[in-house]
Amino acid sequence: MEKLLCGVDLGGTKLSAGLVTLDGTVIDEICTYDHTQKDSDGIVMDIVTLVDSLLKKNALTENNLLGIGVGFAGHVRYKDGTTITSSNLVAGFKNYPFKANIQKHFDTVKVFVDNDANAQTYAEYKYGAGKGYDDMIFVTISTGIGAGIICNGKLLRGITGTAGEVGHTIIRPESDRKCGCGNYGCLMTQACGLFLADIAIDKIRSGIKSKLGVTIENAHEKINGVTVKMGLDDGDELSKAIVFESADSIAIALYNLFQLYNPPIIVLGGGLINWGSIYIDRIREKFHLLAKDMLNDQIKIEFTAIGKSAGIIGAASLPLEG
Amino acid sequence: MEKLLCGVDLGGTKLSAGLVTLDGTVIDEICTYDHTQKDSDGIVMDIVTLVDSLLKKNALTENNLLGIGVGFAGHVRYKDGTTITSSNLVAGFKNYPFKANIQKHFDTVKVFVDNDANAQTYAEYKYGAGKGYDDMIFVTISTGIGAGIICNGKLLRGITGTAGEVGHTIIRPESDRKCGCGNYGCLMTQACGLFLADIAIDKIRSGIKSKLGVTIENAHEKINGVTVKMGLDDGDELSKAIVFESADSIAIALYNLFQLYNPPIIVLGGGLINWGSIYIDRIREKFHLLAKDMLNDQIKIEFTAIGKSAGIIGAASLPLEG
Repeated sequence: MEKLLCGVDLGGTKLSAGLVTLDGTVIDEICTYDHTQKDSDGIVMDIVTLVDSLLKKNALTENNLLGIGVGFAGHVRYKDGTTITSSNLVAGFKNYPFKANIQKHFDTVKVFVDNDANAQTYAEYKYGAGKGYDDMIFVTISTGIGAGIICNGKLLRGITGTAGEVGHTIIRPESDRKCGCGNYGCLMTQACGLFLADIAIDKIRSGIKSKLGVTIENAHEKINGVTVKMGLDDGDELSKAIVFESADSIAIALYNLFQLYNPPIIVLGGGLINWGSIYIDRIREKFHLLAKDMLNDQIKIEFTAIGKSAGIIGAASLPLEG
Repeated sequence: MEKLLCGVDLGGTKLSAGLVTLDGTVIDEICTYDHTQKDSDGIVMDIVTLVDSLLKKNALTENNLLGIGVGFAGHVRYKDGTTITSSNLVAGFKNYPFKANIQKHFDTVKVFVDNDANAQTYAEYKYGAGKGYDDMIFVTISTGIGAGIICNGKLLRGITGTAGEVGHTIIRPESDRKCGCGNYGCLMTQACGLFLADIAIDKIRSGIKSKLGVTIENAHEKINGVTVKMGLDDGDELSKAIVFESADSIAIALYNLFQLYNPPIIVLGGGLINWGSIYIDRIREKFHLLAKDMLNDQIKIEFTAIGKSAGIIGAASLPLEG
């Protein structure tokens, strides 16, 4: 029997595990929400239990697995699989030997740990819109903004393992929007879910009207990726202005990535791409305005082709990188 | 006899060729200024003549060479050695089969062509401050700003060969300074030789005084890298303000490179590093203010260790990359 991959997606609200074939098809997946208040050791036990349940349910043992990959919502010191921090897990995972502590519970199958953006990038490269390219960049635009970079068929990680943090690149140093990292004008402050309400407030101040009853006072309750999408479908001027401003900032970041990496393709994923073609068309248009005649070869800007279960497929693909 | 490398440095004013040992020592070099008004074919002939003269002068033939590397002040399509454009050669070199046309004149020795920033980066990696690191970034700050990126011991080139253009990354989109590329707020407009006068004018407008007699009207004649250095040594407030603003913008760009590549070392070269420690200390200080606790491993910011003849040594090192 051909070996399978096991992918574990550890997020702030959901912990899922899935069995994935070598060609990237999920054949079964299970999840839990019990981990959110536990400490790092407790979460390791939840992961082990989840993987064991998944194997039993499918009448398999760890010998049927080629590897277990774990996608982690935070920074990972790649060489030894120690986590550095997590921004959205109570456990914190500060300098925690995550890979080693999971590995202890398995005899033969090898465990791989990387951050979730890298994991999704590798899946996009193996199975998705990046298939067939030796170099590619995947940018995920969601609550935050992350990215992964494939260079000669490998994830570019850098000395610690934190390369690809396009969300923290500064594109507007004079902006008064402060990122969680403490800096002003990171891409995140201009274009991710966490800052949509701040963009809305700036737009309202500049005189743009909303027919959704959004005001400076209630923007932080009323504005998120989903309500902006609804507003967009409803012809709301404020929602459109938020989408356009976010798109313009993403376009600057993609243009900077083009100048630095000159990749043949950039793939976009994450929740905010549900804003659809009005969003991606604006990104492409602004990108081409900036790139002009400097684009000596075509550079594609595409949506993710992995879709749902991207977290699990991404994590599962990590053992394939070797 | 151990083989030698031949490096050709083709710049806007000077065309030089040198013989370089495999450990990066220049044993002889000659140059000409005759090429500046010639067309692309004429420059190819000048290069061939220069290399032939250098070989004859040292009683060598092309059989004594391991390779000929040419560093070109412009964009190169790396795979076939076609030049795309040059910003500072009259010949223009638009889509010109540069490598092939040089190669025609040599029987056995292989010719390599790349842009000068990439060539200098490779030399810095082989012989300079980047020696011993698998990953590094070299940024040259001069009339313009260029960079090269070493990733796993190889130059990262991208699909066309134009990766590493940090000078064209946009860090202040609302800036009113327009780059030659047509965009506003590229790093070049904030920190390179071409824009020092514009920085000076903005500083004078904001009330900063110069004891060098610089005014808004004469800034473009009076301000350049050398006069700013003189002003700095002379305690001129305007010169110091120009150096600090340039340093702060370079620091933002280096911080963005850190977030994207997470390299262990960034090496700075080019004419403006002659501003000295006041400049690099300011860059380091601002970089660390931005990076804060995100710096999980030490990242060094160093001066080039190649020094004079960097252009020739860089070009000569290209055949070693293979």
